[in-house]
Amino acid sequence: MLTIALPKGALLKDSIKLCQQAGLDFSLFLEESNRQLQIEDPQGLAKALLVRAQDVPVYVEYGQAHLGIVGYDVLKEKQADVAQIADLGFGYCRMSVAVPSASSYRSSSDLPAHGIVASKFVNCAKEHFRALDLPVEIVPLYGSVELGPITGMSEAIVDLVSTGKTLRENGLIEIDILFESSAYLVANPLTYRLNSYQLSEWVKKIIRN
Amino acid sequence: MLTIALPKGALLKDSIKLCQQAGLDFSLFLEESNRQLQIEDPQGLAKALLVRAQDVPVYVEYGQAHLGIVGYDVLKEKQADVAQIADLGFGYCRMSVAVPSASSYRSSSDLPAHGIVASKFVNCAKEHFRALDLPVEIVPLYGSVELGPITGMSEAIVDLVSTGKTLRENGLIEIDILFESSAYLVANPLTYRLNSYQLSEWVKKIIRN
Repeated sequence: MLTIALPKGALLKDSIKLCQQAGLDFSLFLEESNRQLQIEDPQGLAKALLVRAQDVPVYVEYGQAHLGIVGYDVLKEKQADVAQIADLGFGYCRMSVAVPSASSYRSSSDLPAHGIVASKFVNCAKEHFRALDLPVEIVPLYGSVELGPITGMSEAIVDLVSTGKTLRENGLIEIDILFESSAYLVANPLTYRLNSYQLSEWVKKIIRN
Repeated sequence: MLTIALPKGALLKDSIKLCQQAGLDFSLFLEESNRQLQIEDPQGLAKALLVRAQDVPVYVEYGQAHLGIVGYDVLKEKQADVAQIADLGFGYCRMSVAVPSASSYRSSSDLPAHGIVASKFVNCAKEHFRALDLPVEIVPLYGSVELGPITGMSEAIVDLVSTGKTLRENGLIEIDILFESSAYLVANPLTYRLNSYQLSEWVKKIIRN
């Protein structure tokens, strides 16, 4: 049976709406009382897994899910071996470099060599500064990255920015955009190539909307 | 001013109680309406940072916090350069290998060579299987690790077990314990050695209880 991995968090509601338009009802995942992480749609056509956004590419790469919906930011950071089928046109945000507004840095290349940059997106941050040929130390954090510059631990952060509210509240400003991100439909490469589970039919139904 | 990093989540309440016994009131962090991640105690004696458990060793290692409270599991996984001062005697849990109860595996060494083990604690899992000389593939997951064996992606998981309720609910059983864990008081090595901020006085007050 076709299995699709859906991401917890900001993209879940729109992901479930998209599935609904393709005839698959996984709205049980939106009910607060739900504790199940694996459900079948009421018509028994397909299964869905509810996992952390970062885990979507893992389940798709290992073939436990044939399709997945996940932000481009996660795909870029994890560099998982999945087929990127389509930009789904929701969940827009951007990966940015931000610094305290009181600092004198106005672009990434203003940062001091051997400065410290805190980020949840270590690979994206490394790639950005490597391309600039600027040797900075990337410190991996798991949450509240804005505390890095506030406490003085880091000169800058690389983080996902949506409305910019968190940055403003913490006295930070964006000085560079690494890339823009939105939700993507991804597939297991082998399943996609062999068209198992009538994958291409499902993909058409999901992305035609 | 002395700064202490406190972990969000399961250890927060007991950590704040311990600080209170040492004369430092950070109970504001327990109020649901609180959005501040950095506060001063009302007497102005010390500051506290509220961060993810995994980030506590980072802030302590880089010296933005002089003390920190964090689970031994995180210290072992991150191998951060911090001084482990004392076992604080709360937050008991264990790092275990678990498999589906229906499987035939009853110890780690029963697992097949080149089998797959899912874990949030990649380094701990690697070390365990390396010591057994059993080549398994460790797949990093960020949440709901129990889905690994349920979906058939992995033969086993390495995860933190407290009451065992999550394992039971998902038809998994523990087959090996890697180590036991509890909350630790950690310090920045240099601050501790130089006894800046009267660190040893504070440590005595915190651990005497």
